[in-house]
Amino acid sequence: MRTNAMKFVFALFIGLSAMGSALAQSKQPNVVLMLADNLGYGDVGAYGAGEIRGMPTPHIDQLAAEGLRLTQFLVEPGCTPSRAGLMTGRYSIRSGLSKIILRGTTNTLKAEEVTLAEVFKSRGYRTAYMGKWHLGSDEESQPQNQGFDEWRFGFFGTTEATLYGESMARTKAPEKWQALIPQIIEADHAGGPVKPVRAYDLEYRRFVDRDIANAAVNYINTHAGSDTPFFLFLGWTRPHYPNDSAPEYHGKSRIGSYGDSVMELDGRTGEVLAALSEAGIEDDTIVIFLSDNGPTKTSGTVSEINNGSAGPWRGELGDGLEGSIRTIGMIRWPGRIAPGVTNEMISIHDFLPTLANIIGADTPSNRPMDGIDQSAFLLGQQPNSNREHLLTFIGDRLVAVRYRQWRMYPVSFSSTDGTATTGGYLGRMGETAGLPEIYNIEADPREERNVGAENGWLVVPYLQLIGEYMATVQDHPNPKAANLTDF
Amino acid sequence: MRTNAMKFVFALFIGLSAMGSALAQSKQPNVVLMLADNLGYGDVGAYGAGEIRGMPTPHIDQLAAEGLRLTQFLVEPGCTPSRAGLMTGRYSIRSGLSKIILRGTTNTLKAEEVTLAEVFKSRGYRTAYMGKWHLGSDEESQPQNQGFDEWRFGFFGTTEATLYGESMARTKAPEKWQALIPQIIEADHAGGPVKPVRAYDLEYRRFVDRDIANAAVNYINTHAGSDTPFFLFLGWTRPHYPNDSAPEYHGKSRIGSYGDSVMELDGRTGEVLAALSEAGIEDDTIVIFLSDNGPTKTSGTVSEINNGSAGPWRGELGDGLEGSIRTIGMIRWPGRIAPGVTNEMISIHDFLPTLANIIGADTPSNRPMDGIDQSAFLLGQQPNSNREHLLTFIGDRLVAVRYRQWRMYPVSFSSTDGTATTGGYLGRMGETAGLPEIYNIEADPREERNVGAENGWLVVPYLQLIGEYMATVQDHPNPKAANLTDF
Repeated sequence: MRTNAMKFVFALFIGLSAMGSALAQSKQPNVVLMLADNLGYGDVGAYGAGEIRGMPTPHIDQLAAEGLRLTQFLVEPGCTPSRAGLMTGRYSIRSGLSKIILRGTTNTLKAEEVTLAEVFKSRGYRTAYMGKWHLGSDEESQPQNQGFDEWRFGFFGTTEATLYGESMARTKAPEKWQALIPQIIEADHAGGPVKPVRAYDLEYRRFVDRDIANAAVNYINTHAGSDTPFFLFLGWTRPHYPNDSAPEYHGKSRIGSYGDSVMELDGRTGEVLAALSEAGIEDDTIVIFLSDNGPTKTSGTVSEINNGSAGPWRGELGDGLEGSIRTIGMIRWPGRIAPGVTNEMISIHDFLPTLANIIGADTPSNRPMDGIDQSAFLLGQQPNSNREHLLTFIGDRLVAVRYRQWRMYPVSFSSTDGTATTGGYLGRMGETAGLPEIYNIEADPREERNVGAENGWLVVPYLQLIGEYMATVQDHPNPKAANLTDF
Repeated sequence: MRTNAMKFVFALFIGLSAMGSALAQSKQPNVVLMLADNLGYGDVGAYGAGEIRGMPTPHIDQLAAEGLRLTQFLVEPGCTPSRAGLMTGRYSIRSGLSKIILRGTTNTLKAEEVTLAEVFKSRGYRTAYMGKWHLGSDEESQPQNQGFDEWRFGFFGTTEATLYGESMARTKAPEKWQALIPQIIEADHAGGPVKPVRAYDLEYRRFVDRDIANAAVNYINTHAGSDTPFFLFLGWTRPHYPNDSAPEYHGKSRIGSYGDSVMELDGRTGEVLAALSEAGIEDDTIVIFLSDNGPTKTSGTVSEINNGSAGPWRGELGDGLEGSIRTIGMIRWPGRIAPGVTNEMISIHDFLPTLANIIGADTPSNRPMDGIDQSAFLLGQQPNSNREHLLTFIGDRLVAVRYRQWRMYPVSFSSTDGTATTGGYLGRMGETAGLPEIYNIEADPREERNVGAENGWLVVPYLQLIGEYMATVQDHPNPKAANLTDF
């Protein structure tokens, strides 16, 4: 990837070094980090979808045009794992969060993890979290106990839990299980308790992103004039199923609720961007817009077809294929990060060390860090990203090794059959015949041709990368991953 | 598609009406039409591939940026059918060309067809053809007998025939079949004979696009200063298998011969565009760059994996799925066609009536025409394209009906199995259980969910569109399609 990308990125580099040295920041930049939920590589206009898919996304597209759009942005294959990677700068398996948290599972973010919010706090930032958390509901795990000054409402779990109530009623479930229906909660100061706001049910599911956007706009308006910079993290809920949207978005797309939901995500994002502009702090604010993982194509509900698309890639939320872990990502910092498109590899773990470097904060030195500081690349001080590989875990199992354009799998993913065909998080993970599967993602974007025969040499870097990881685990053993299937 | 696309295209419209009326052309525009061979929707940078796929395409990308890029450009599902549709403005089935011509098949372009070149001749244009023809080798079918003043070398058949010689030698085929090895030929004046130039073998396959580009550059330089406008048609051979490229392109991509070949196609296209610019006629020349059909992913040769990609769509060359008939297309006319991107539906049949209107030529009135004049849309005089549907044929069988975003199939396409898995032109076409399959291409780009149940209403427009077509056939019966399988 390096060689041919060089010229492309080098132009960027030349343009930026001048820009970088000419500017001086009066104070540390604000950072607004927006995380979409299950938005696929093939769902947004800037990535070749949008209008073509019947759901225009003009605000996200404009952000992409004004910022650096990442076409090789890699994540972990599920909501909890990816958020853990983003929040800790480490593979989720190191914090015991390599499986999606469901009611009843034991995985939860531990106090001893150093979070992105704590990194910002170490430099005096004001911090706030709004929206979906999904990193555990234990007291030590809650946002206001993990570096955020406030959690201006949100919820612990996952949006499909809004379906539980109706399903329990329809199927006449015993009343004792109703306590598992999720709540909207908030915490108004660091270290304080969470207070219930209302049920997170199908009715309120329609309005949650409207309220996240409103809270974000209020926050921006309140703190725009302050000398203290802020770090604002928005955990959007869209387009995670179920996808009923606010009334003003009903029927806006041509593909039903999924498209309406993507368009609402786009519209709410636009509201936040407009607030930054109107408050006059657009130039002083780094805006990062990411998705947490690939799309859902497989429907697990009786009423909804999930119309997400991973674009050219195979795979979806929950498996270890490219479509599950390669999704959209963009970063805008006017005057500092040159607008453009890059195919250099960046992972979601990289944001913690990268942002730490930008604001002059330290990162933990007493534990393995998997994120890599990419600030020199983003600021145009070097032509290439510092990343060439990524490991992917599901539970306590290493399921994929990415090295440059090579995808190598110690396991084999497939859709179920014999029942209604389903893939992704409803699919299957089986053993190979004893060799890793090897695919070239550039040559074969849908991972249909195992080219291990002429690429047996890749077993050497494959084992080397695994070995380097295993060495860190020997010194710092992972907690046990949540277990739902191995008894 | 209309409703939501409206605002997007309307901005274009406003911008252009002013532009259109303010300009006057001193003479008719030159037209350079370049047709790539089996280039997929997911193969080019402007369509989200290029560098991401390990094969940058900067020249085609720049042309796309300077012109109007079509994201819903529809063709026919094979080289011969698509070229027949382009050349006649009619479904290929009307000229008996709805199957790919192979040595031994009887289909050939008839003298009574009115070709695109004849349309240009009717307005006094100088016309030339260079490269792959694939519309039949009978005398009446040859370019210089179908409206082109010259055929500055090319070949009748298809590029995989360059493999015949080696395969015949390896497999010890009887010598009598060697006459079927293809030739490079040329015809230097209208109505004249074709003269052999050399064998079209694997050695020369590497150089054919270099020579097409050189011939085109010479042609442009020779005629740039003339008062007579020209119509130049380039039938590129790339990235049709086999894909060995000219030496200077060896190893240029990161994905092997397919990528090298795409990059050579891009480089050769750049040579032609540079010649237009250097000759000072860029502003007086309409440049159209199209692919004839979807990519090949399935390899029919022992030595080559075909790394084409249809991007988000399912299907490949030879089947009737979206990936087979939706491919890349762009048109540049400086000062007349506003640069941009449109998802309005345009088919390859539309170019004949559209270009005829632009140059003030008549189109045939004594036969059914399937192409639709799109000049008002392209020139910004109306916000929408005039097309909402397209029928797709293979041989004498109607295999697909497109109506707006709906894909409806009277047959069912699948890959073979039990042998090495193959799809596309090596795949299978079977009967449905008696109902058409129905897919929503916006909601479900990979056509994985037959949504006929809630869309049974579509049977009405489906039968209506088929009925309208059948009525034209009653008055103007189709010739018999070539037959290779039904005996």
